[in-house]
Amino acid sequence: VIIVAGGSGSRMGLQIPKQFVVLGDKPVLMHTIQAFYNADISNIILVIPSSHKEYWNDLREKYSFEIPHVIVPGGLFRSASVSNGLDAISEEDAVVAVHDGVRPFVSRETITRAFEIAEQDGASVPYLDISDSLRKIEGITNKPVDRDRFKTVQTPQCFRLWMLKKAYKIPQLPSFNDDATLVEMLDVPIKLFKGNQENIKITTPFDLIIAETIISKLQEA
Amino acid sequence: VIIVAGGSGSRMGLQIPKQFVVLGDKPVLMHTIQAFYNADISNIILVIPSSHKEYWNDLREKYSFEIPHVIVPGGLFRSASVSNGLDAISEEDAVVAVHDGVRPFVSRETITRAFEIAEQDGASVPYLDISDSLRKIEGITNKPVDRDRFKTVQTPQCFRLWMLKKAYKIPQLPSFNDDATLVEMLDVPIKLFKGNQENIKITTPFDLIIAETIISKLQEA
Repeated sequence: VIIVAGGSGSRMGLQIPKQFVVLGDKPVLMHTIQAFYNADISNIILVIPSSHKEYWNDLREKYSFEIPHVIVPGGLFRSASVSNGLDAISEEDAVVAVHDGVRPFVSRETITRAFEIAEQDGASVPYLDISDSLRKIEGITNKPVDRDRFKTVQTPQCFRLWMLKKAYKIPQLPSFNDDATLVEMLDVPIKLFKGNQENIKITTPFDLIIAETIISKLQEA
Repeated sequence: VIIVAGGSGSRMGLQIPKQFVVLGDKPVLMHTIQAFYNADISNIILVIPSSHKEYWNDLREKYSFEIPHVIVPGGLFRSASVSNGLDAISEEDAVVAVHDGVRPFVSRETITRAFEIAEQDGASVPYLDISDSLRKIEGITNKPVDRDRFKTVQTPQCFRLWMLKKAYKIPQLPSFNDDATLVEMLDVPIKLFKGNQENIKITTPFDLIIAETIISKLQEA
């Protein structure tokens, strides 16, 4: 798995980037890494900005965090970060997942299914249903659309290695941030599967409040 | 405001319907009613199934809940419930909001803006941005869509009274559950405005966990 944690935390209004915020007993990013390790994914590549590496190493020491992982420097955009992560994979044939560092609550089942489906079908992405009504903006007006036909998608997005490598050779917009959309340009169909609702992306202060609740419920259980 | 609370709670896996679940110091539905009362909306119509009326009256006594409201019996479908609520309004000219009973965290600002915009433009609906990537299901395949062009919408949905009354005279599908979509059939444009992120609809056990966190944060503040 390539775990991408390049955020500067500017949207959080916090001093430290959100992947380093402590949730329960350790920083967000350690929960994320542990989720994959617990799901028997031991080949973990962490992509962080070079400027964060020393801080991360200090955190690892402080929290006695022992799960092995390879650290790769991030790029200016997410796509460059994923690309750097891909370059760090030595295998010729493999299944690779790309996961947001700020999604610490991905379940073991979501991870396992992502890898199983990609192994079989080439490309897998977890989705969730939309519970509110949905409208589409059209210029200055808007119209209702059938929410059952739309799904939000999360990570891990999982692919056969050659596909993702090939997709990242397509000239692309620098701000590209959805790997499935890129792989799809190779005419590879994306297999959606139901993800887990707790697998939120921690972006806003509200998300962080929700995250604190999830962690305390998980630690009770 | 017409507050619709007709749910049977069957999706919650709980003994009591979700509008009656206690959050913090009182049941969900009392928080919802209070939100409108605190936003200076004192004409409150509560639509609940006839079979829940006695239970509701017992709760009101138990929690010494004094905010005045008119109780109207619900119908088999949400549309029938809203229609019954409309029949209980004696004014000829007014602005009316329809709100889900299980959205207790609607903010004062969301309520105020809903009424102000509907007063001026006829029809208003709060929206939120979608933070995950979005895909559209097309048969057995799916494709990416631009999430910035799609918004989830919540309640209160607010309208000039004559519009909503007229819309509810259109023959409709019994399971119709979005008032804005109905009003739009009259060629009335719907004005969207940004809602508040805490204004979740409590539907699943996970939502209830989130709701418990929001209530405790609100009570700290």
